[in-house]
Amino acid sequence: MVQQSPAFLLLLAAICVSAAHPKTARFGMVRRLVTSENEAVLPAEFVTYYYTQPLDHFNYKPESYSTFQQRYIMNTKFWGGANTSSPIFVYTGDESNLIPLIRFAGFIVDLATRFNGLLLYIEHRYYGDSMPFGSEAEAFRNSSTLGFFSSTQALADYAQLITDLKRNLSAENCPVIAIGGSYGGMLASWFRLKYPHVAFGAFASSAPILYFDDITPQNAYHVIVSKDFRDTSESCYDTIKQSWFEIDRVAAEPDGLLKLGQIFTTCMPLNSSQELRDSLEINYVIAAQYDNPPDNLVSNICSAIDGAPLGTDILGRVAAGFNASVGAPSCHYVHEFRLSNLSGWDWQTCTEMVMPIGYGANETMFQASPFDLGNFTKSCQDLFGVTPRPHWITTEFGGHDIKSVLENFSSNIIFSNGLRDPYSAGGVLQNISSSVVAVYTEKGAHCLDLQTPSPSDPDWLVSQRDTEIEIILGWMAEYNATLASKIV
Amino acid sequence: MVQQSPAFLLLLAAICVSAAHPKTARFGMVRRLVTSENEAVLPAEFVTYYYTQPLDHFNYKPESYSTFQQRYIMNTKFWGGANTSSPIFVYTGDESNLIPLIRFAGFIVDLATRFNGLLLYIEHRYYGDSMPFGSEAEAFRNSSTLGFFSSTQALADYAQLITDLKRNLSAENCPVIAIGGSYGGMLASWFRLKYPHVAFGAFASSAPILYFDDITPQNAYHVIVSKDFRDTSESCYDTIKQSWFEIDRVAAEPDGLLKLGQIFTTCMPLNSSQELRDSLEINYVIAAQYDNPPDNLVSNICSAIDGAPLGTDILGRVAAGFNASVGAPSCHYVHEFRLSNLSGWDWQTCTEMVMPIGYGANETMFQASPFDLGNFTKSCQDLFGVTPRPHWITTEFGGHDIKSVLENFSSNIIFSNGLRDPYSAGGVLQNISSSVVAVYTEKGAHCLDLQTPSPSDPDWLVSQRDTEIEIILGWMAEYNATLASKIV
Repeated sequence: MVQQSPAFLLLLAAICVSAAHPKTARFGMVRRLVTSENEAVLPAEFVTYYYTQPLDHFNYKPESYSTFQQRYIMNTKFWGGANTSSPIFVYTGDESNLIPLIRFAGFIVDLATRFNGLLLYIEHRYYGDSMPFGSEAEAFRNSSTLGFFSSTQALADYAQLITDLKRNLSAENCPVIAIGGSYGGMLASWFRLKYPHVAFGAFASSAPILYFDDITPQNAYHVIVSKDFRDTSESCYDTIKQSWFEIDRVAAEPDGLLKLGQIFTTCMPLNSSQELRDSLEINYVIAAQYDNPPDNLVSNICSAIDGAPLGTDILGRVAAGFNASVGAPSCHYVHEFRLSNLSGWDWQTCTEMVMPIGYGANETMFQASPFDLGNFTKSCQDLFGVTPRPHWITTEFGGHDIKSVLENFSSNIIFSNGLRDPYSAGGVLQNISSSVVAVYTEKGAHCLDLQTPSPSDPDWLVSQRDTEIEIILGWMAEYNATLASKIV
Repeated sequence: MVQQSPAFLLLLAAICVSAAHPKTARFGMVRRLVTSENEAVLPAEFVTYYYTQPLDHFNYKPESYSTFQQRYIMNTKFWGGANTSSPIFVYTGDESNLIPLIRFAGFIVDLATRFNGLLLYIEHRYYGDSMPFGSEAEAFRNSSTLGFFSSTQALADYAQLITDLKRNLSAENCPVIAIGGSYGGMLASWFRLKYPHVAFGAFASSAPILYFDDITPQNAYHVIVSKDFRDTSESCYDTIKQSWFEIDRVAAEPDGLLKLGQIFTTCMPLNSSQELRDSLEINYVIAAQYDNPPDNLVSNICSAIDGAPLGTDILGRVAAGFNASVGAPSCHYVHEFRLSNLSGWDWQTCTEMVMPIGYGANETMFQASPFDLGNFTKSCQDLFGVTPRPHWITTEFGGHDIKSVLENFSSNIIFSNGLRDPYSAGGVLQNISSSVVAVYTEKGAHCLDLQTPSPSDPDWLVSQRDTEIEIILGWMAEYNATLASKIV
């Protein structure tokens, strides 16, 4: 079994974070840690291109006609060619530079091999190398330059690029299957729903499309985090649950922050206990969200907590868990997590991707922290000068009563989830119809199925991917039958 | 049989013109003629409200958060109430002031009576009393103020208004059926396709959703106009066909324009023969498009042409037809038809609603006039400072290969047409699936089924409407069954 390095884990966390806790965007910093890895070199068969996109698809002001260069990457190595009906697998880029996404989501290459597919990865506007206004600095200057940064614009980008590309390749007969994970999975499923004439099917991994408005209980995310820990070890769960009180108690003592800094070996003196609590919380949250084999992040933490020498107190145990989870560095940099005006995802949560994730008292292993739209709105106004539209996603894409709405409407969508993923609480976990289906595993976490398959993968993961392949085989059979009937 | 006055015919033409010939927007002037009738009083049960809409749904610039007041009109007289599953019939307003639309489309009131429906008419942004920037003058100032005027913004307006209204009425269980004619019919069908979570079904009358890009032959519109005349009278058709050459011949003579002015009793001396030809052409086009009983506009023209005294020459006959069609005024005001920067519809054709209607030589009873995107683009740039996006509608809404795309996707759409309507060439005339269906008549023309039913309606029209009612009954049965299964 290959043991991944902690650096890899951070990278992984960065790649497939769809949707940060909106109160503090806890994943933002993690994402920035991996910037230097973003531009890693891909194998030569992945070729980079740029497409000229209009700045605004839905508006006809002069400014809307400005353009930017959108990066996309193709791999034609496995493709059957334009004169066949071989599929085009379109990776609907999400809140990240495209390169690490490609490295991460190796299952798509498997699919291309199996289906003689063309691989087309499209970078989401305002990420990576797809910056309007010429540079990230200009694009992120203020809400006037960021204003064009939205999911609907991104979907229209994909529609326009794919339509043009298929025409240029004379590949009109090649069906498009949209694939994405997390936020990219939402985009993939919404793309099928909004652009069925462009995407014939969608494979949405760990896409919490129901974590908007009042559809999913606000506490559900952290309930699953807590359950992941509790299922792993009741005593570990209890220790963490009690630790917050202990942190507060020590922090209130004279020199309490100094003492906490020593217990948790922070690199700098603590300015507040919030810094420590935020750092611990994101550590648990990431562990749960990516609690996938072979890393078993929750087990690692709990082993350290439970395995501390007899007589170790609660904070000592929690500190041991913290050390174990990040590879026992000589000291820890801890920060209070806040929205950042350099984070594209934070802009998105401050405008439309308002996931009301919070939690009341006694429901989780965390301290109570209800989602507060008023506070959140104020933070967004202060930071970006923008006011969130918390009902927009359900107005534009639906979500309420999804089974009734879609059971006789739509087809060819896979919603895959791992139930250890806290975001699975907002995922589609029930078949909507015979061809809009939920494929989930009890043991997997966030976006596991999209990862490059490995010989060490457990049977349940192999089986999940086999199911997904079977479903896509069915779509292709349907597509080819329709195509044949048209030719006859 | 009630004989309608010519003024009514002009009004009717203004109400249900979806889609002008893009070369010259020939219906623009007709529309402006009826301005004074727009604000006619409706019965008291039609109550006017205003909804505060954001200027731009897809953009988060500060300016996008500006709002305007969108007019909507409700009639609750027939409604079963919020605690039932009585439907909400939403009239998706099109390129007109809302009031004459309501007066025109009386079949919807019939539907409301029959289904205990709530009637909700929503005015399209930038028409009637739903002007951004406070006034028509401000809204139409330039391409920066007009930029927010698009079909996608209009659909999002409808989604947001309906969602809010249903919540305010506690009418979440009442299914929405979108209804519209012509451009409004396109909007109704697109609304069902894009917002299935808001609209449970759509009834799209005379909606030429396939008259975009290269889907429908460019000449098809005028081929049907010509066929309508030829089917009515071969000699009438021949006379019209020969008249253009005669007009050109006379115009080339010394004092030719003066002579033409006398033959056609124009109120002012002609500046060019184009003025005359345009006026005649729109006259024929309107006659064909609204060649509905009891008016039989094509017959009226052809009777006059064919019935002119023996020995009347071609131009004399055509002039007699012209006189007959507009109620024999003492003289005719004729104009060359051009795009107008006061016309909302002309803005729409100059941005996204680019219907490439044209025609080559010898295909129609008209002189050859191919659609010329270059010229059209230049006109739009000169007039509005805007460049058309001719592929946008098919990118955003599809249209190519519609049967394959939608047969296993979507449900509950009626596409109704009358085959005498030239726009039926771009309509859906084939069932796409068991619940996305085409309902058409050989004899009807544009939007006839939406008109207020009358005892004098021919059997085929009664039968068309009965079919439409049957289909909606089926939708309601499906809806109620699903609702019942949820309650159980």
